[in-house]
Formats: sequence, C-alpha cells, structure tokens
Amino acid sequence: MKYIAGVDIGGTNTKIGLVDESGKLEITQSIKTLSEEGVYKTMHRIWETIQGLLKKQNIMEKDIIGVGMGIPGPVKNEEIVGFFANFPWERNLNISKIFEEISGKKTKLNNDVNVIALGEAVYGAGKGSNSSVTVALGTGIGGGIFVNGQIISGFSGAGGEIGHLKIVKDGKLCGCGQKGCFEAYASATGIEREAISRLMVNKKNMLYKKIGGDLSNLEAKDVFDCAKLGDEFSIGIVDYEAEYLAMGIGNILNIINPEKIILGGGVALAGDILLKRVEEKLSKYAMPVTLENGFKIVLGKLGNDAGILGAAALIR
Amino acid sequence: MKYIAGVDIGGTNTKIGLVDESGKLEITQSIKTLSEEGVYKTMHRIWETIQGLLKKQNIMEKDIIGVGMGIPGPVKNEEIVGFFANFPWERNLNISKIFEEISGKKTKLNNDVNVIALGEAVYGAGKGSNSSVTVALGTGIGGGIFVNGQIISGFSGAGGEIGHLKIVKDGKLCGCGQKGCFEAYASATGIEREAISRLMVNKKNMLYKKIGGDLSNLEAKDVFDCAKLGDEFSIGIVDYEAEYLAMGIGNILNIINPEKIILGGGVALAGDILLKRVEEKLSKYAMPVTLENGFKIVLGKLGNDAGILGAAALIR
Repeated sequence: MKYIAGVDIGGTNTKIGLVDESGKLEITQSIKTLSEEGVYKTMHRIWETIQGLLKKQNIMEKDIIGVGMGIPGPVKNEEIVGFFANFPWERNLNISKIFEEISGKKTKLNNDVNVIALGEAVYGAGKGSNSSVTVALGTGIGGGIFVNGQIISGFSGAGGEIGHLKIVKDGKLCGCGQKGCFEAYASATGIEREAISRLMVNKKNMLYKKIGGDLSNLEAKDVFDCAKLGDEFSIGIVDYEAEYLAMGIGNILNIINPEKIILGGGVALAGDILLKRVEEKLSKYAMPVTLENGFKIVLGKLGNDAGILGAAALIR
Repeated sequence: MKYIAGVDIGGTNTKIGLVDESGKLEITQSIKTLSEEGVYKTMHRIWETIQGLLKKQNIMEKDIIGVGMGIPGPVKNEEIVGFFANFPWERNLNISKIFEEISGKKTKLNNDVNVIALGEAVYGAGKGSNSSVTVALGTGIGGGIFVNGQIISGFSGAGGEIGHLKIVKDGKLCGCGQKGCFEAYASATGIEREAISRLMVNKKNMLYKKIGGDLSNLEAKDVFDCAKLGDEFSIGIVDYEAEYLAMGIGNILNIINPEKIILGGGVALAGDILLKRVEEKLSKYAMPVTLENGFKIVLGKLGNDAGILGAAALIR
C-alpha cells in the first residue's frame, strides 16, 4: 500500500496525517506551527513529525508517494505562496521546493480553504459529484471551487475567494478594506454586526436579555439560539442573513452551476433555521436551470479532517 | 492533414466552417437555420453543407475527425441541450447523438457563448493563457469561463451565465424575470434603459438632439458617440455603466481569478471611453491580488469567426 502525507498549516497549530490511496486517514498529529521561528524550522518540524508517524504505523518512508499542504494564503502553480496571512514569512516563497529539498518527496500545496473544498469534493460530501463549491461560513467566508477533478486555484492563487464577491455597491465595509463584500453580510461577523446595530435601537427582545445587555458579548450563535426559541427580533436578523446568503450562493450558481454546494464552518451549524430560509430565497437569485437536475445544498462531512484529507488529495 | 467541422447555430443563420488541426479556418459558409422545419431537417442540411465544403476543398470525408457545434441554450455533457432559446425543438434533445447518426462523425456541442469563449481562449485573444473569461457585451451579457484547458459548462449547462449575476438586491428587472442582474445594468439594453430614464427628465443635452427627441430611436452607440464629443450628460451615463461593468467584472475576478478578461460584443466597440473607466474603477471591486502578475483586460480577436473556431476547438 502507498501513502500520502496531508499537512494542514494553520496560524497556531499544524495538523498532519497519513492517508492511504483510498482516502483512509491512518493517523493524525497536531503540532505548533511556530511560524515566528522561520519557514525552514517549521518545515523541518513537519517532516520530522511525518517521519515519526511513519515509524508508529510501521510504514516505510519509500511508501510515501508525496506530501500535500494547505496554507493560509494565495498559492500559485501548487508551489508558490503569494503571501502568508499572519505569518512573518517572505512573499512568493516556493514552499514546494523547500519541502522537497528537506524530504525528498514530491510536494504540492494550495490555499487552506481550497484544500478543504478538495477534501470534501473527493472524499466527503461531494464524493461522486463532478462539480461542487464549498462555502466555509465562519468569522469570514471562504470558498473553493471544484470542477472536472480540479480546484480552480486562479492565476494568482485567488480562485474561489467568494467572500469578497461584491453584493452591495458601496455597501458595508469589509475586513479586506473594500466595501459590500458577501462576507461583510453573511459571515458570523456579518450577523454580529447587524445584530449589534439593531440592538442599539431595540432592547426589548430575548437576545438582549441573553447577552446580559453587553453588546461586546454577542456571538452569532446567540442570534440563532434566540431565533430557535421564537424571538421575533432574532428571527428578523436570521432572515436578513439568509437573504444575503441566498444572493451570494445564487451568484455562485449562476457562474459555476455546480452539482452541489457544500456548506461548512460554524454558521452552517445553525442548521435548518438558516438553511431552510436560504433554500426558499434561492429561487430569487439563482437562474432556475441551476436548481434543476437534482442540485443540492449539503453540509460538509469531514469536519476537522477536511484539511488533511484535502491536502493529501492534491497528490493523486 | 486532418480537419474539424465547426458549426455555429444561430436563431436565423448557421455558420459552418472547416478548420485544420492548427486552428486555421479553411472555408466557411452560412445557411439559414430554419429551425421551424424541425431538428432533423436542420441537422441534415448542416451535414450536407459540410459535405459540400469538403468537396470544394478536395478534402476526403474520412479526414474529418469530428464536428463541434455551438447552440443557443444550456448544454449538458457536451451532447444534450436542456432547452433551445427561440427554437421550436423539444427539451433535453441529444443533438450529439442525432448528428452522429446522420454523419457518422464524433459530435460535441456547447452553449454558443461558451463556444465563443473557447475559440478566443484557444485560438484568439486568450491564446497561451491558462485561464480566461470572455464577457460578451451586447443586447444582453453572456460569458464563458476557460480554466485548465476546459470551458466550465456547468452541471446543467448554465456555467458562465455571468449576465445573471445579481449585483443589486431587488434591483432593476431583467429580461430573465429576476431582478438586479449584471445584464440589466451593463448591457447595451442596460445603457439604453438608463439613458431613456434620464432623458425623460433632462432634454438639454447633445444626446436628446442626436436622436431627434425620439426615445424609441436611441441606441447605446448614440450615448458613446455623444460622450466622445464631450456631452456631459452622456459621459454621466457612460460613468454609470462603467461602474456596474467594473463591479461585475470584479466579481468574476474574485471568483475565478483568470489571467485575462476578454471583452467582446457590440458594447466593447465603444473602446477607450468605456474601457479606461472600467479599468480605473476595477480596484474598488476586485481583490488587489487578482489584478497583479500581469492580469489584463483585452478585446476579442476572432470577431465573427469565434463561434466556428470555438466549435471546432471542442474536438481536440
């Protein structure tokens, strides 16, 4: 049996796993990324961890056919990282070359969200579909587009940056510095911003009570919890969120027309109270033909393993 | 030498050509589509025309390696047409199978705008680029996305329907029945609607004089012509148009991050007065990284031959 090492590099922790050719995850380990010690130390530590895992599993080093990595930043040609979000590493680093020199193994990388999307597409909720778009709804909104067996990485590594679709001209300021981004409306942060804005003029509601009147305490989950309990004020916010979520997803459908939309991230955990509304509103934004032939919105299946499995899927 | 037949089926006319393996167009002929006579008669007429062209060029029928077709409608799996825009032909017709039975030649099809995009990507303004998105700015807005050697046709044949990106929530009514579509703002029709709306309350301008005060006379070209002559009123409309065009193109960049945007269609003929403005405004909507590494907006190169050449490029 041959194996692939999947590496999911995060700001704080790096998750590493061994995956067999069928996509079975044999073993995982999490280490500190410690990016401040420099790229070479981090890469050496990753390779040593892989070697340790091989030993534990009694797998020979020669049976590793390659290493796949997910990295927080735009990746060109599956090897060069344009810049690292939050890492003190230089621009346009050829991480693939660095790691190949350390390990002697073929190494491919892609953006972390693209890698999650690839994992879900190949081994998870999109398995068997020719096309899927993964929408990661968390603090921000990330995305990855899978078509014809490949992720659309983009010319400069920015393919699938759906969080920065502009859905309102001159709209709300986004963390990226531009205005009117999908993410400024439909992410957890977007929900929190809207909830706080509304709470400033309406305090007679369950949500205000739940957070003890402390606006800085509010989390998106509070809004969903109160909405589930019937709080009309919170339901109004969920409706607002669902409308923009439908608009953003509808736009993805009109451009890509995928077989599946795969939702991940914390906001997706809100469940039916959000998803049912999005599905109802979708026909206002998506062309009818994109909703036909069995198109489905599904939840991601791989959870925390999506990054490792997707990284491994880069080596196929 | 081997050859491919490229067929560009339109509402009124069908253009047919023979293309050699290097992409050289040897000969073309235009025939009436006459869709009202039924799909079989049209397909037979197309094959007879191809046979006639072969004879004229002294090419043996066995040297045709396949037939590619562009068709006005969504196409699944390069063979089945979901529905025909304006043709009295039934839904979900397997045109590929029908034509293969008539001709004995491998036949592949795609949507007409996708085929134009493939032609520009392989033989025209996108030649040598790994990714390009063609934006056809005419009465409506069509699009085709080329990535990694392939057109994104979509699960139901609606890939690249960028004209129906929603850029204004509950915005202007579009011909498709939905609201706020890119096409409702930035197509020739979009310009004309905005111009007429403004002319109804402002008649002291060059544009009003040019159309002799007859609103039903107005064409998008009049607006560009007056703007080029310095008419402030018309320049205002061009600015409005350019803003939405930048928003739509910016959204395409954020999702696909292509190496090139290829502009085609009548509106693109407006030239610098429109394009310069779009380029200036683009940085408000497109993520900065998508505009780096030599990204370019270019004009289409193949003109009326794009459909035939792109259809031929389906057979590669």
